[in-house]
Amino acid sequence: MKIEHLGIAVKSLQKSDELFAKLLGKENYKQESVEREGVTTSFYELGDSKIELLEAANPESPIAKFLDKRGEGIHHVAFGVENIGAEIERLKAAGFQFLSEEPKDGADNKLIIFLHPKSTNGILVELCQEKP
Amino acid sequence: MKIEHLGIAVKSLQKSDELFAKLLGKENYKQESVEREGVTTSFYELGDSKIELLEAANPESPIAKFLDKRGEGIHHVAFGVENIGAEIERLKAAGFQFLSEEPKDGADNKLIIFLHPKSTNGILVELCQEKP
Repeated sequence: MKIEHLGIAVKSLQKSDELFAKLLGKENYKQESVEREGVTTSFYELGDSKIELLEAANPESPIAKFLDKRGEGIHHVAFGVENIGAEIERLKAAGFQFLSEEPKDGADNKLIIFLHPKSTNGILVELCQEKP
Repeated sequence: MKIEHLGIAVKSLQKSDELFAKLLGKENYKQESVEREGVTTSFYELGDSKIELLEAANPESPIAKFLDKRGEGIHHVAFGVENIGAEIERLKAAGFQFLSEEPKDGADNKLIIFLHPKSTNGILVELCQEKP
């Protein structure tokens, strides 16, 4: 398990891409829309991990709701795993709750699933696995 | 630059150490008090990065204030750098603001400095460098 990426909710991908390019000293390596999630994303490599900026694609997007409630900031942390099915089983057995029954397609060629923040100290934790 | 660690504010290190040991599938590798910052910390290795749990050591601790305002959750992200002085110069020249003039001693044998969240999309960003 590793920190695969840190997801950051931003109001404007254009403005925040400028900011993060200056902060990290490098350009993003891609932008990608995930229609099902209502987000447009921008990715930066950072050592063995990534930064994922998240802009709401529509007012119903979870990111739009997060911005209304909390403002810009860290939205989730994603732990990269080798076998997402096995990790889900392990964590369910340990009493953790998930926001969905099954993993689904996420950005960046990943299978993803979220744990319920109530079971993880208020943190939205994503598990992700590279798609075979 | 890499994600050196993710700092997570928790009410009870005892309870959260149990939770994170289950979540990450491993025990912490140390606890450390940083009196100057008013925190007790617990560290977990996670790939090339770490998770740092932060408990307030007293009611005046910045972590106590964070918990009052926001509840438990991600408190800061720390970017590990080779030369903290050079990075501070680079980022000041790019217009970023810092919470102090000079780096100071942090946990885990590091020199640390924080950027002002107003200049970084609401995120509390720490720069840290291994002490020589």
